[in-house]
Amino acid sequence: MKLLALDSSGLVASVAVVEDDTLLAEFTMNYKKTHSQTLVPMMNEVKRMIDLDLESIDAIAIAAGPGSFTGLRIGSATAKGLGLALDKPIVPVPTVDALAYNMRGTADVVCPLMDARREQVYTGLYDFSYQDGSYRMNIIKSQCAVALQEIAAACNELGRRVIFLGDGVPVYREKISQCVNVPYSFADSFQNRQRASVVAALGMSLFRQGVVVSAQDHAPEYLRLSQAERERMEQ
Amino acid sequence: MKLLALDSSGLVASVAVVEDDTLLAEFTMNYKKTHSQTLVPMMNEVKRMIDLDLESIDAIAIAAGPGSFTGLRIGSATAKGLGLALDKPIVPVPTVDALAYNMRGTADVVCPLMDARREQVYTGLYDFSYQDGSYRMNIIKSQCAVALQEIAAACNELGRRVIFLGDGVPVYREKISQCVNVPYSFADSFQNRQRASVVAALGMSLFRQGVVVSAQDHAPEYLRLSQAERERMEQ
Repeated sequence: MKLLALDSSGLVASVAVVEDDTLLAEFTMNYKKTHSQTLVPMMNEVKRMIDLDLESIDAIAIAAGPGSFTGLRIGSATAKGLGLALDKPIVPVPTVDALAYNMRGTADVVCPLMDARREQVYTGLYDFSYQDGSYRMNIIKSQCAVALQEIAAACNELGRRVIFLGDGVPVYREKISQCVNVPYSFADSFQNRQRASVVAALGMSLFRQGVVVSAQDHAPEYLRLSQAERERMEQ
Repeated sequence: MKLLALDSSGLVASVAVVEDDTLLAEFTMNYKKTHSQTLVPMMNEVKRMIDLDLESIDAIAIAAGPGSFTGLRIGSATAKGLGLALDKPIVPVPTVDALAYNMRGTADVVCPLMDARREQVYTGLYDFSYQDGSYRMNIIKSQCAVALQEIAAACNELGRRVIFLGDGVPVYREKISQCVNVPYSFADSFQNRQRASVVAALGMSLFRQGVVVSAQDHAPEYLRLSQAERERMEQ
């Protein structure tokens, strides 16, 4: 089974192709260029390097939100376009779940932190359990948009060691040290941001469970109202 | 601190640039093309995408072996060429250590398996300990070339749960099930092969410890004799 995966939910733009349990290619970039300029060229470069016939993929896994509204729209629009043209389904992978999946195998609680501006983070709580020769990710608290203090309190309540990751870490490092009173650490550079190969790996598992939507029906999950919607509501 | 990292020790060709705890870019490919055709073009593509001035890097981290002899030579020759031209040092990262570092944060023993042909694997045993808010990798058994049975016996002796990864897994999956009598699992697709971002992350830590050599002095660590050397010795 072969998946093309895209993640442009945050500052990172990332493209990967995975076949069963083998990563065939991944291109990831965390740079100031906008995703509309990078995502499709990166995909083309991957396609060219591994002689990928797009017809050979089974589905398109996409980091489906939350995240940057513009980033999510670029990712989802690209996935929908490909899906419609190729007649392939979309596997929508929750962004925070995929971030947490970077830490597959850890014994700690995993707490991704994406900077959501307006004093909130996109976050959630996860852990992994070993069962029958494999690790399964458990969702302790589903992805949500809350203040750092609220997720810190949830960590404290669990009373277990926590590992933090995501672009919220540099923003909230000081506040974490003030609010979190369980032992904690931070993920290293190769595992602390969005990566399409992780979206693909988690997407593979969701695809096998039948979690797919048509390209027609797919829409990103923003978790919050956009600024324009919020301002209209406030009037 | 900024590192360029290269890994062409196995089937994978991979290039990454890391600045402190942020991955700026990574391009990884696991495809039949030979590394001499892919590694430098991939590096150029990364360079172009993130407007990288090669003068701005502090060192070049390289997966320094063991691995495919030709692959190691291509990687080391590229690193040496760059290091000499730019007057930057090399950080030699043991290949098996870097493979194990993929699993940073796990509570299991980590056992990378690289298919070394001639009924051997390049392998080692590692675990991670949490200290003062960070994870440190401990080398239980240094990288070596042995038969699968020998490393399986070492796993059994430890009596702890093991996680296997590397291109030796598909080759030895059957034999693992016969020889290993502790609980075990396999790493997922995004963490089960060489990746330059992991070489960079481990290289960053080695660089800070002063583990550097000049581009002039760097040579890969083959761990075994080449076929030609072996045949000459046998005569």
